[in-house]
Amino acid sequence: MSESAMSDKQGAPADDPTYWAALGQQFRVDSVRVSGVAKSGHPTSSMSAADLMAVLYAKYLRYDFADPKNPNNDHMIFSKGHASPLLYAIYRAVGVVDDQELLQYRRLGSPLQGHPTPVLPWVDVATGSLGQGLPIAVGVALAARRLDRLDFRTWVLCGDSEMAEGSMWEAIEAAAFAGLDNLTAIVDVNRLGQSLATRYGWDTDTYARRFEAFGWNTVTCDGHDVRAVDAAYAEAVATTGRPTVVLARTKKGRGVVAVEDKLNAHGKPVDDYEAAIAELGGDQRLRVIVAKPTANGTPHRFDTDAAAALPTYEVGSSVATRKAYGDALAALGSTRGDVVALDGEVSNSTFSEIFRAAHPDRYFECYIAEQQMVANAVGVQVRGWVPYVSTFAAFLSRAYDFVRMAAVSQARLNIVGSHVGVSIGEDGPSQMGLEDLACFRALHGSTVLYPCDANQTAQLVAAMADLDGIAYLRTTRGNTPVIYGPDERFPVGGSRVLRSSPDDRVTVVGAGITLHEALKAADALAADGIAVRVIDAYSVKPIDAATLADAARATGGRVVTVEDHWAEGGLGEAALSALAGAGFELRVTQLAVSGMPTSGKPDELVTAAGIDADQIAAAVRSLLA
Amino acid sequence: MSESAMSDKQGAPADDPTYWAALGQQFRVDSVRVSGVAKSGHPTSSMSAADLMAVLYAKYLRYDFADPKNPNNDHMIFSKGHASPLLYAIYRAVGVVDDQELLQYRRLGSPLQGHPTPVLPWVDVATGSLGQGLPIAVGVALAARRLDRLDFRTWVLCGDSEMAEGSMWEAIEAAAFAGLDNLTAIVDVNRLGQSLATRYGWDTDTYARRFEAFGWNTVTCDGHDVRAVDAAYAEAVATTGRPTVVLARTKKGRGVVAVEDKLNAHGKPVDDYEAAIAELGGDQRLRVIVAKPTANGTPHRFDTDAAAALPTYEVGSSVATRKAYGDALAALGSTRGDVVALDGEVSNSTFSEIFRAAHPDRYFECYIAEQQMVANAVGVQVRGWVPYVSTFAAFLSRAYDFVRMAAVSQARLNIVGSHVGVSIGEDGPSQMGLEDLACFRALHGSTVLYPCDANQTAQLVAAMADLDGIAYLRTTRGNTPVIYGPDERFPVGGSRVLRSSPDDRVTVVGAGITLHEALKAADALAADGIAVRVIDAYSVKPIDAATLADAARATGGRVVTVEDHWAEGGLGEAALSALAGAGFELRVTQLAVSGMPTSGKPDELVTAAGIDADQIAAAVRSLLA
Repeated sequence: MSESAMSDKQGAPADDPTYWAALGQQFRVDSVRVSGVAKSGHPTSSMSAADLMAVLYAKYLRYDFADPKNPNNDHMIFSKGHASPLLYAIYRAVGVVDDQELLQYRRLGSPLQGHPTPVLPWVDVATGSLGQGLPIAVGVALAARRLDRLDFRTWVLCGDSEMAEGSMWEAIEAAAFAGLDNLTAIVDVNRLGQSLATRYGWDTDTYARRFEAFGWNTVTCDGHDVRAVDAAYAEAVATTGRPTVVLARTKKGRGVVAVEDKLNAHGKPVDDYEAAIAELGGDQRLRVIVAKPTANGTPHRFDTDAAAALPTYEVGSSVATRKAYGDALAALGSTRGDVVALDGEVSNSTFSEIFRAAHPDRYFECYIAEQQMVANAVGVQVRGWVPYVSTFAAFLSRAYDFVRMAAVSQARLNIVGSHVGVSIGEDGPSQMGLEDLACFRALHGSTVLYPCDANQTAQLVAAMADLDGIAYLRTTRGNTPVIYGPDERFPVGGSRVLRSSPDDRVTVVGAGITLHEALKAADALAADGIAVRVIDAYSVKPIDAATLADAARATGGRVVTVEDHWAEGGLGEAALSALAGAGFELRVTQLAVSGMPTSGKPDELVTAAGIDADQIAAAVRSLLA
Repeated sequence: MSESAMSDKQGAPADDPTYWAALGQQFRVDSVRVSGVAKSGHPTSSMSAADLMAVLYAKYLRYDFADPKNPNNDHMIFSKGHASPLLYAIYRAVGVVDDQELLQYRRLGSPLQGHPTPVLPWVDVATGSLGQGLPIAVGVALAARRLDRLDFRTWVLCGDSEMAEGSMWEAIEAAAFAGLDNLTAIVDVNRLGQSLATRYGWDTDTYARRFEAFGWNTVTCDGHDVRAVDAAYAEAVATTGRPTVVLARTKKGRGVVAVEDKLNAHGKPVDDYEAAIAELGGDQRLRVIVAKPTANGTPHRFDTDAAAALPTYEVGSSVATRKAYGDALAALGSTRGDVVALDGEVSNSTFSEIFRAAHPDRYFECYIAEQQMVANAVGVQVRGWVPYVSTFAAFLSRAYDFVRMAAVSQARLNIVGSHVGVSIGEDGPSQMGLEDLACFRALHGSTVLYPCDANQTAQLVAAMADLDGIAYLRTTRGNTPVIYGPDERFPVGGSRVLRSSPDDRVTVVGAGITLHEALKAADALAADGIAVRVIDAYSVKPIDAATLADAARATGGRVVTVEDHWAEGGLGEAALSALAGAGFELRVTQLAVSGMPTSGKPDELVTAAGIDADQIAAAVRSLLA
C-alpha cells in the first residue's frame, strides 16, 4: 500500500464542518464506486454511516497509520463489517490505499475483502458476523484499563440490526460494570435491515433507555448532522466512569434517491453506480489527516518470577486434569507476565481460581456470558496478551461463532473446556462436553489437545502459550492416575506408545480418560495372551499420523479407537483421517459415546456409553475373531 | 410413577398463605434430602426458589398432571435447571413421584436426572445450560398466540446468574415486541452464583429498569414472603399487552444457617443433611393439588391444500438449492398445516421469504438473534408444530448450544443453513459455512443432508418433516445444474451412484456443489480412458455405508472424497467412518477446503480451496500413479 496515494490534495482542518460533510460525501461516492465495480457489496449500509466516520477520522481518532502497532493508537472496530466499502473509502482518504487498490475490492488476492479481516494491518479483528465487534471492543478496552494501563480509546461502529443479538447486551453489561469510559459505541440507526425494517426503526429513545438501564451514557443525534455528531463525540470523550453510546439516526443509502431509505437495497451495488456517483456530486480527492496519538506511554508489564516452575505430580497419584490446568496456568502466569485468564463464573470447577488467587490483576471474571468471555479474550490478544479461556466444554458451544470468527481473525487464543464426556457423572447430559473435539477440530489452523494425566496437562498448558491460532485443551472432571513423570515432554503433534511389543495384534488409540480404559483393557487382554499396542493420542489435532500408521501396519490394520465424545468429528475420525491414505488393509472399530447419556456414576456412564475397558477388550477380540 | 403416592394427606386450600409457606418449607426439606442421599446436586439453588414455586403450584398453575398432553395446560420451564431438586420435590407433593422414586435422584436409570429432561412427561425441554429456558418459553408463548391460539400461560423460573447471558435479552426483547402477556418470568434473585456473587446482588431495581426498558411489566418482591409473591403473580396474570417479570429477592440455601446466603455452597449437598432437615422442621407430607385448566379449547389448525405439490425443476436448468428450499417449504406449508418457518432476518437470502409470502401466519421473523430463533423453534415444537429454521449456515454456529440442548430435549427440529462453503464467493470467510457438517453430525440422533440440485432439495425438505431429532440441510448460494428428474426419490440414508462401470478404478464421493465438480472430473477422466465411480452422498448422516463400501471395494479401495467444508468432521470423515470396518485395503484422499478462504469469485475460490474438478481429477490420477 502506498503511503501517499492522495498526496495531491491535503486534508482540511480537523474542525471544519463543511469539510466533514464533504468527506462524508466522498466516503459515499467511494462506497458506491467500489461496490459498483465489484458488482457486489453493501454500499447503502456504508452510506448511512459515512458522516459518522468522517467526523471521527477527521477530528477524534488518534491513530498512526504509519505505525499500526503503536501501543497508544486508538482502536476502531467495524462491528457492522458489511460496511467494508466505507472502511476502505476511509483508507483511501487516509492515503494508505490507492485508487487502483481500492478498485480491487472483493477480488481474489485483494486484501480488501468483502468483510474486513486483519489481512489489513489496520484491522484488529475480522467482522461480518454481526454482534461481535462491540463485544471484542469491550475486550480491547478492558485490556487498556487493566493490562496495558494506557489511555487510548476504543471506538466501535455498530449497526442497528445487530442490536437484536444477545451478545451485544452481554457486552453492554460488561462494559458498564467495568466502567469503561475509554469505550465509545456508535450505532448507525439506519432503520433498515437486510430484508425488513428493524424492530425499532428510528426510535433511538428506545435504544437509549436500554443502554441507560445497563449503565451507559447515551447521546442521540442526527447522524447526518456533522455538528451534532461532533458534539456527541465530544461528550463521549468527556464522559468519565461509564461508556458512551452515540445513537445516530441515519438514512441507509443516504444521498441516492433510488436507494435512500429503501428496502430491497441491502447488500447489492447501486444500479447505475456512475449515475449515483454523479448524484452524490462526483468523485472527490479529499484527504483526511488522522491525528497521531499524543501519548507515548509504554504498556504495563507484570512482574515475573523466573524461578517459578510448572507443577509436578507423583506418578501413581490421582489428580484431575482440570486441577492440573489450574495449577499449571498459575505457574505459567508467574513465569510469563503476558498470560491472562478468563472464566465464565465456574472458576471453582475449571480451577482457573488458582490463577485468580495467584494473579488477580490478570484474571477476568466474565460471569455466565460465554460469548463475551471469548470476545474479551479476542480483545486482549489484539493487544498482545496471551489469554486462556475456561468454562465447561459444553458451554463453549455457546460461543462457537465467536471462536469461528476468531480463527478468521488469526487470533491467538487458548481455550480450555472442562467436564468433558459422560465421565462427569451425575450432572447429566446438559453438562457433558461431547461435541467439543468436533467443533474445535473444524477450525482452520487449530490445535486440539486432550491430556490423560496431570503432568501431561501441565506440559501442554505451557506449550499452548506459544502456539498460533486457536488452541483447545479438554480436561476431565474426575481424578485420573498420574502415569507420566514430571520430566516427560509432550510435543504438540506427538503421541505416546504406552504398550508395544512385536506380538501386538491390535492397536488401541485413546486419549484422556479413555486412555486409562485402554490400558486396563490391554492388561486384561495380555493376561489372555493377546498383545495390543496402546497409543495415547493426546494431540488430537495435529494428530501423530506417522505413529498411528506404523502401529496400524504393525497390527494388521486392526485398530480400535475409543473416546468420551460422540463418534462424529472426534478422536476416531481424526485417527481415520490420519490412516486414510495409508494404503493397507484397515479394520477400524470406533468406540464412542452411543445413545443419549443420563445421570449416573462416572464409571456407570462410561460403561453405558460403550467405552469402558471391557468393551475395548471386546472390540479387540471381535477384530481378531 | 404412581398417581397418588401422597394420598395420605390432602393438599390445603389454594389460597392459604400458611399452607404456601409450609409447602415451600417441604420443598426445601426434600431438596436437601434428595441431594443429600445422592451426594450430589444443587439444594441451595432450590431452597431459594421454594416459596416462589409453592405459591405458583398451589394457586396459579393450571396443569393436569394426569394428562400432560392436554393442550390447555400451562407450561412451566425451569430455566435454572440445576434447581432440579426443587422440581422433583414439587412432583412428590403433586403425587406423581413417590418417596422411593424421589430418592433415586441422579442415579443411573432414574428419570430424575441431575438436570430436568423430557424423559419426564411433565418436562417440556431439557435445561441446565443457563440462559435457555426463558428463550424457549418465549417460543412456547409465541406458539400459544400465533399458532395454537389458546389461552394457557407459560411460566419460567430463571436464576439471577443467567441474566448475564445475552440469550436472555434476545428473549426479553422478542417477548415484549410480540406483546406476550401470556408469559411470566420469575427470577430467583438469590444474589450468589457458583463461585462468586452476581454483578448486581439483590439490586432488583437494576434488573427491573432493564426489563422495563425492554418493554416488560415488572414486579419486585421478597421471594420468601408468600403474600407478596401471591400479589406479584396476581399482577402478572392481570397484566395485558406485555409480559411480566417477577423479580424476587431470595436467599440461597434459605432456612439452613450453615449454607444460607453463603458462598461456597453451590452445587453440592448440605453437610449433615439430616440435621439440616431437622433445622427446617423435619419431613412433611403436604400435598399440592394443582388446578386443572378450565379452558377446553382445541388448538387452531391451519387450512391445507391437498392439491399442492412440491415444486419441480427441469433437468438441465440451473437453480440454487436455497431457492428450491424456499419453494419446497412453501409447498409443504400448503399440504401440511403444522409446518412453520423461522428466519433470522435473512429470508431473502435463505428464500424462506417464499414461505413467508405464502403462509404469513406461520412465519416467525426472529431478526438477527439466532439463539432466540432456535429457541422459538424448540418452543413451537414443544406444542407439536414442525419448525424449519433458516439462516446462513455460518450463523447457525451462534446458536449451537441451543441446538446441542435441543438434542438432549429430544426436540424435532429442522434446520437449514444457506451460503455454505467457499462457493459463496465475494462476501468472504465470515459468511461461509465451513464447519456446519461437523457441528450437526456431532449431535445424537441427528440427520445431515446436503443436496446438489433443486429437485433433490425439494424431496429432502419434505422428508425432513417426518424425521425425529435434529435434521439439518445445507444449501448452496449459487445456481447448480438440475440433474435429477422431479420424480426421483432420495431416501434419507441413501446415496446415488451417478457414474458406474465395471472398469471403475477410483470412487469419487461428493455432495452438493462438489458433486458437480466430481461429475466434471469424471467426464474429463473418461476422455482419458480412466473410469471412475461417482457417488452423490446427499445423506451425510446417516451415510449410505453399504453403497460406499461396495464402490470402494470395486475400485480397489481407492476413494476420493471432496467437500466444500473443512476436512474435519465433514463428508470425508463421514465416508471414512463408513469404510472404517470394511476390512480391505483403503487409499482415501480427502479433498476439502485448505487454507483460510478470502473473497473472490465462486469458481476462483473453489479452485483456491483445492476442491475443483481439475483437482479431483489430479487426486484420482495420483491414486492410480
